Amino acid sequence: MVAGMQQVVDVAAEAAPRVPVPPGRPFLRALGANLKETFFPDDPFRAVAREPGRGRRALAALRYLFPCLEWLPSYTFGALRSDLIAGITVASLAVPQGISYAKLADLPPIIGLYSSFVPALVYAVMGSSRDLAVGSMAVGSLLFAAMLGKEAPPAESPELYLHLAFTATFFAGVFQAGLGALRLGFVVDFLSHAAIVGFMGGAATVVCLQQLKGLLGLQHFTTATDVVAVMRAVFSQTQLWRWQSVVLGCCILVFLLSTRFFSKRRPNFFWVSAAAPLASVIFGSVLVYLIHGQNHGIQVIGNLKMGINPSSVNSLILSPPHMMVALKTGIITGLIGLAEGIAVGRSFAMAKNYHIDGNKEMIAFGLMNIVGSCTSCYLTAGPFSRSAVNVNAGCKTAMSNAVMAVAVAITLLFLTPLFHYTPLVVLSAIIIAAMLGVIDFPAAARLWNVDKVDFCVCLGSYLGVVFGNIEIGLSIAVGISILRILLFVARPRTTVLGNMPNSTIYRRMDQYTMARTVPGVLVLHIDAPIYFANASYLRERISRWIDEEEDRIKAAGEESLQCVVLDMGAVASIDTSGTKLIEDIKKSLDRRSIQTALANPGSEVMKKLDKSKVLGFISDEWIFQTVGEACEYALQNFKIAKGVERADHIV
Amino acid sequence: MVAGMQQVVDVAAEAAPRVPVPPGRPFLRALGANLKETFFPDDPFRAVAREPGRGRRALAALRYLFPCLEWLPSYTFGALRSDLIAGITVASLAVPQGISYAKLADLPPIIGLYSSFVPALVYAVMGSSRDLAVGSMAVGSLLFAAMLGKEAPPAESPELYLHLAFTATFFAGVFQAGLGALRLGFVVDFLSHAAIVGFMGGAATVVCLQQLKGLLGLQHFTTATDVVAVMRAVFSQTQLWRWQSVVLGCCILVFLLSTRFFSKRRPNFFWVSAAAPLASVIFGSVLVYLIHGQNHGIQVIGNLKMGINPSSVNSLILSPPHMMVALKTGIITGLIGLAEGIAVGRSFAMAKNYHIDGNKEMIAFGLMNIVGSCTSCYLTAGPFSRSAVNVNAGCKTAMSNAVMAVAVAITLLFLTPLFHYTPLVVLSAIIIAAMLGVIDFPAAARLWNVDKVDFCVCLGSYLGVVFGNIEIGLSIAVGISILRILLFVARPRTTVLGNMPNSTIYRRMDQYTMARTVPGVLVLHIDAPIYFANASYLRERISRWIDEEEDRIKAAGEESLQCVVLDMGAVASIDTSGTKLIEDIKKSLDRRSIQTALANPGSEVMKKLDKSKVLGFISDEWIFQTVGEACEYALQNFKIAKGVERADHIV
Repeated sequence: MVAGMQQVVDVAAEAAPRVPVPPGRPFLRALGANLKETFFPDDPFRAVAREPGRGRRALAALRYLFPCLEWLPSYTFGALRSDLIAGITVASLAVPQGISYAKLADLPPIIGLYSSFVPALVYAVMGSSRDLAVGSMAVGSLLFAAMLGKEAPPAESPELYLHLAFTATFFAGVFQAGLGALRLGFVVDFLSHAAIVGFMGGAATVVCLQQLKGLLGLQHFTTATDVVAVMRAVFSQTQLWRWQSVVLGCCILVFLLSTRFFSKRRPNFFWVSAAAPLASVIFGSVLVYLIHGQNHGIQVIGNLKMGINPSSVNSLILSPPHMMVALKTGIITGLIGLAEGIAVGRSFAMAKNYHIDGNKEMIAFGLMNIVGSCTSCYLTAGPFSRSAVNVNAGCKTAMSNAVMAVAVAITLLFLTPLFHYTPLVVLSAIIIAAMLGVIDFPAAARLWNVDKVDFCVCLGSYLGVVFGNIEIGLSIAVGISILRILLFVARPRTTVLGNMPNSTIYRRMDQYTMARTVPGVLVLHIDAPIYFANASYLRERISRWIDEEEDRIKAAGEESLQCVVLDMGAVASIDTSGTKLIEDIKKSLDRRSIQTALANPGSEVMKKLDKSKVLGFISDEWIFQTVGEACEYALQNFKIAKGVERADHIV
Repeated sequence: MVAGMQQVVDVAAEAAPRVPVPPGRPFLRALGANLKETFFPDDPFRAVAREPGRGRRALAALRYLFPCLEWLPSYTFGALRSDLIAGITVASLAVPQGISYAKLADLPPIIGLYSSFVPALVYAVMGSSRDLAVGSMAVGSLLFAAMLGKEAPPAESPELYLHLAFTATFFAGVFQAGLGALRLGFVVDFLSHAAIVGFMGGAATVVCLQQLKGLLGLQHFTTATDVVAVMRAVFSQTQLWRWQSVVLGCCILVFLLSTRFFSKRRPNFFWVSAAAPLASVIFGSVLVYLIHGQNHGIQVIGNLKMGINPSSVNSLILSPPHMMVALKTGIITGLIGLAEGIAVGRSFAMAKNYHIDGNKEMIAFGLMNIVGSCTSCYLTAGPFSRSAVNVNAGCKTAMSNAVMAVAVAITLLFLTPLFHYTPLVVLSAIIIAAMLGVIDFPAAARLWNVDKVDFCVCLGSYLGVVFGNIEIGLSIAVGISILRILLFVARPRTTVLGNMPNSTIYRRMDQYTMARTVPGVLVLHIDAPIYFANASYLRERISRWIDEEEDRIKAAGEESLQCVVLDMGAVASIDTSGTKLIEDIKKSLDRRSIQTALANPGSEVMKKLDKSKVLGFISDEWIFQTVGEACEYALQNFKIAKGVERADHIV
């Protein structure tokens, strides 16, 4: 009997190991390969490297840097017509929205128009999305007002505030371009979809509440953004509410919402809702001009300077102490701008089946904001509402942005005096209408249905924004998301595998009811990398599995546990705590005279086990390609050891 | 042809799905089960619940709360003799070490003796380790001096400093017991083995440097712990160095190190190195007494009060502002004490094949420190050096702690006057000798060999401690460790699987050179949960795999890509971004007329796919238990679609 077992052992020891240890690579080459996988997953220079000849390679590199070179050579007249229509439609939305958002950011309204001109041109050259329409964003504007307003209240020091806004835009651009150039695009990925839904919903709520100032015709208001402070500010001055303003605002709001509703029902009439803001502005301005509304409690925009963007290079504040707040604002708003812009760009690209390079988009956004900050623009990104109008209007390429820029430039050069009588309450109504579309209840309901943790992330960031401020909301969202990842790694699931009938396949017994255990063998599946964070958990959990199995065997009167097979197929990685864990399990099982076997370890795991000498301790004999092989071998071994001939337990 | 394919589809649609969707569980029950897996992985009350009858269950619960009840009933005279020997041996080390570490913490030496009495008794009752010897720890002492010394310099306000130390001990205990009671033991797991090696090495280096003060007989010294400040303090006062002190210190250090070396070579003579510190103390004291060394530049301890621990309940400072620094110190030192104590306890438990419940240990440590803080003790834990002596001396149960406590109590009651002439330099030598053993070069070398990231963690925390301070070192270590987990999830490896010859098994082609691709089918293996953090990375990486495969096929002139099989066996979990990714992949492959198939999705993944309606979109027909089935089915389908009869590609 013993001789027989010895023979099996000898044969196994002489044969090549079933699972090979990958050959060692020089440290620097392994590091290089890892860095490439981490930072260049999409191998962006593949297209360049493939071209033959130096000249063509240079051309390919240029095309890589300036995506407009990809579509310009084959640009057709048909595409130009489509882009013209789309660009003009977007411009009719961009002008009133630009002015509104600039007011939201406590900036002069003209800055909002400037911001739809130069950045859009930059994006037309650098951007890789065909659908994104560039412009300022509501959340970013609100953040500017909240964060920079503390350092330099715009009512007291408007010039410093303006300079801070340019500086923050500059830093946002540098941060965005830097992230893209350093291939750190994944930073944005840590803002999950759920976090963005909750965060945007919260910001939209806050923005709407802020608009009560304009809607009620109030002169003084709080700079705080949380719901409590805003409500207190609104209801502490009920005697100052202006009914004229309220009536006009509500009418316009109802008009805007019903056009949106109409356009949603009939997608062919997309232009109705796209042109509605401009129509409201014209209607409001004419009305105020006719009835002299400015004398009846309706505030108007007032004079707007004519002419395109002046330079603002000299306005940048690049020395402390004011620089610090601009830096912080720039980083936070830059990140949010990227997250929204890239998410919007990707979802439209997915619908039209082309690809957007996240890192390239970041560089485009960054340059757009750097150039913008030097030409009197503030933070721009690719807001959803504007881009959706662009897509509905049938845009074909980024040329639609250039068309919009030209239309805005014409407005700046010739039409600004027309906005003198535009009432602020109309702008508030435009913002509220835009923001109500951002609060996405169905998405939140979907999150609740599919994934409760994601719903918590969403709700947490919403409540954080509404009751705290935008930074608190963001921190809550990112915090819960990261905690979830850490918890996943800290508490991996271990499951018992059973043999599927009439096969050598082993599957989770809690998932497949027909799976059956193999007598005397316990197969455990670990579904996460074994790291320091879960090594002691796994030690406790696995020893509990074994104890429970032995209790069960004792109760059922079956034969005792002979072998524990660890299915390592899902263990992607292992660190020194992990190899120590495997060693400890082997040792403690040896003491109980139970054999330890590993099934399907990956190359990473094999390498680490080999280097830490744990592989030799377990011995190649007990390492298998599949769980089936492991169980079969274990059963044979016990049979030989016991000298008993039994029917095969597995097929 | 089309009819044939239709038939296959119909059959598949009628049959039960190959991979079942787990039945939905009520939200609260699912939450409960998840919480249990997360917080009670070891099911601690199993032993209690198993007992029949209320009385026996109460007894089992008592045994669970007070582990001493487990071994006391069966305690034998033989075990008592072993514990007596071990306890007295440890006490001979504990007395000089206690005094030394108290000096290190800038506390009166007598506090060090107090701290080896009461906490050891508490641990004897509450502790579940049979090997741990309780006492103050060097790193904790150093942290007390560094953190509390800033708030209340012990030279200026010794009483406030003392009270702060008791308060910090109290908070450490509350924090430890709280972590245990809330089952948050996994917080400690985030201090990886690598981090602890580097951190302890750094702390030991810093402690040794600090001892230059005692060794050189200096009176004034820096409170900073970084190497630069200490070196400056040492070399700025070379004229004050005392050669008498240096000579005595070096002699004792050589003596201590050579006894340690001797005991390591001959484990039977463990008591030589255990008793060496006491011997040094006696020798040093006698020498100083005889030559009146205190008049020749050798500082001595001076008077020690007789009597056991007085109460210190009234010394606790439980109101701001002083409370805050004590709170912070308590939390950090409590965490480090737990990490070291549990690691030491577990490694000895592993060697003797019994189990330590981490959460129970935390409660024991916590109570030990809470009771200690009320009886004039400062932070205690289970330091390695003392526990190793305990084990070598042959301890059997926690009774050895009680024996040590009694021996220390006898010292306190009758022998304290004998320490009057003990020179401080001897204490410094004792600390240096203990700390040199803590710097673990072989462990660092092993980390470098096995896992470069772990080595970075180790080196980072070492350098952080040595050149910054202990908190910086800790933050670096925890930061790198967490970054590694996040990076693992953010950048999962995707690999192509190939068919192993003569089987239906599919394995990674980069690991098994004999694996072959199936023409027309690309099998991709994803080895991490699909979360928001990696969804867009996976989108890019998978589309690059497909592009590369199509390029390869075009170059090789093979038949075009028909089906992409995603092996989900290692995808343990998925969130809403993940289900969106699967949906997007399916859509974009549909547009390229490539079929999408999923192989071996787990129950968690199936549930999420079902709830998000992605399952219906992919259809049960294209979800398989194994990769082999998926490939076979895909090949059959293409054959029918093309009406071509070819030889089977797979066996």
